[in-house]
Amino acid sequence: MTTLHIIKIGGNIIDDPAALDAFLRDFAAVEGPKILLHGGGKKATALSERLGIPTHKHQGRRITDAATLEVAVMVYAGWINKSIVAALSALQCPALGLCGADADFITAVKRPVKEIDFGFVGDVVSEKTRGDFLQQLLQQGLTPVVAPITHDGAGQLLNTNADTMAFAVAVAMAARFEVQLIYCFEKKGVLTNVTDDNSVLPHIAWSEYEVLKTAGIVSEGMIPKLDNAFAAIREGVRSVVIGHAGELKEIVAGRAGTRLGGLQ
Amino acid sequence: MTTLHIIKIGGNIIDDPAALDAFLRDFAAVEGPKILLHGGGKKATALSERLGIPTHKHQGRRITDAATLEVAVMVYAGWINKSIVAALSALQCPALGLCGADADFITAVKRPVKEIDFGFVGDVVSEKTRGDFLQQLLQQGLTPVVAPITHDGAGQLLNTNADTMAFAVAVAMAARFEVQLIYCFEKKGVLTNVTDDNSVLPHIAWSEYEVLKTAGIVSEGMIPKLDNAFAAIREGVRSVVIGHAGELKEIVAGRAGTRLGGLQ
Repeated sequence: MTTLHIIKIGGNIIDDPAALDAFLRDFAAVEGPKILLHGGGKKATALSERLGIPTHKHQGRRITDAATLEVAVMVYAGWINKSIVAALSALQCPALGLCGADADFITAVKRPVKEIDFGFVGDVVSEKTRGDFLQQLLQQGLTPVVAPITHDGAGQLLNTNADTMAFAVAVAMAARFEVQLIYCFEKKGVLTNVTDDNSVLPHIAWSEYEVLKTAGIVSEGMIPKLDNAFAAIREGVRSVVIGHAGELKEIVAGRAGTRLGGLQ
Repeated sequence: MTTLHIIKIGGNIIDDPAALDAFLRDFAAVEGPKILLHGGGKKATALSERLGIPTHKHQGRRITDAATLEVAVMVYAGWINKSIVAALSALQCPALGLCGADADFITAVKRPVKEIDFGFVGDVVSEKTRGDFLQQLLQQGLTPVVAPITHDGAGQLLNTNADTMAFAVAVAMAARFEVQLIYCFEKKGVLTNVTDDNSVLPHIAWSEYEVLKTAGIVSEGMIPKLDNAFAAIREGVRSVVIGHAGELKEIVAGRAGTRLGGLQ
């Protein structure tokens, strides 16, 4: 099977024009089919502030009211998404900007209200993700660029976590390609020493993961990312790498980042 | 050949949620392949005002500086485009939101500076419009929904007139389909008496057009629209109809609007 790179970048790259530019050059140069998913960054918050829309959070997670959703759709699916598409096109990498509502390819449900109503936030319904649609785009030589917005299938757009969208896309493509899922974040990988940026663990097998958690080597913030990554591998994704966007070339070549795998 | 409906709606519909909702229901019910192009409306101007971005105009045409472009991309290619896509999806009409940068499908050049620099405004390079890409989407059962934003192929997004984009798309599809191009605007068609909304001319042949212009029956504002429409017919578009969005069903059935044709 052909290798498919699915790469997710977060706000730290989106918010830094020089870093984004460098990343997109490296991304455009990745050979073979590829999909980019991007997060939001600070631009939406800044725009909300300029518009006098108050930001509500619960335990660090933003609550998306109607005005905040509109800003998120404008910034994520509008400006950021189309700017990336235009930049990739100029790099001879014809791209297609998407949100989950497009071709119904990622459906979510509005997060159920328990103690907190998170508002217009969507939880992805993984099994509805349309791998067939993405495959057709890839066959046309296009690179899908996905914004962190989905819909509920009944007309409502929803603000959605890009990590979970990347997970759903990777799993949906796992039967069609050898999927390498790359999560870019602000560190070079999982560090054995949080004060040393170069103490990257090159590989974590499933059997080692519990030990690392117990030893406190995997920090709390990393646990959802790694749980997610191992879940993807259980669903047939060939490999998951966590690393820094500035090292994309090395990550793709297997020389950087923390590679997760080995379920036995 | 199969009939393809290419329908353009303007700001008067975009700005009226009830009218837009009714239009989208009628649009979703149009049988066979179809493409929707939408204009901008007042939302971008309203957002610019809230953000304190001054609006500059020259002879009624907006000048697009960098801040205004960003607002246009956010509102047109973000909020309006994705809201329409989500609404169509809920109407069992799977749609795909696009701007010209997506898949490089409509390229423009930044309007050359003569007396006035219009800023980031694009003039469509018609012959670069990728009918092959749109055809593939239609074959997948998708309805393209196109926002009035293009790019120059070198990374620059451009604010672009939706009428000329509709023209370029119609011409690019004319070899593949029997194209019916429908321009929706605020009147029911070309009126013989501007004070009587029901004095619609059902048909204008090319041979009659010059006579109507000379007689002053075709008002100045209509001339660019009609010039454009006859140009599309000369390029192989089967028919062009100008009418009101609220009468879409009747227009498609050939019972409303002003139909242009008959080049001899």
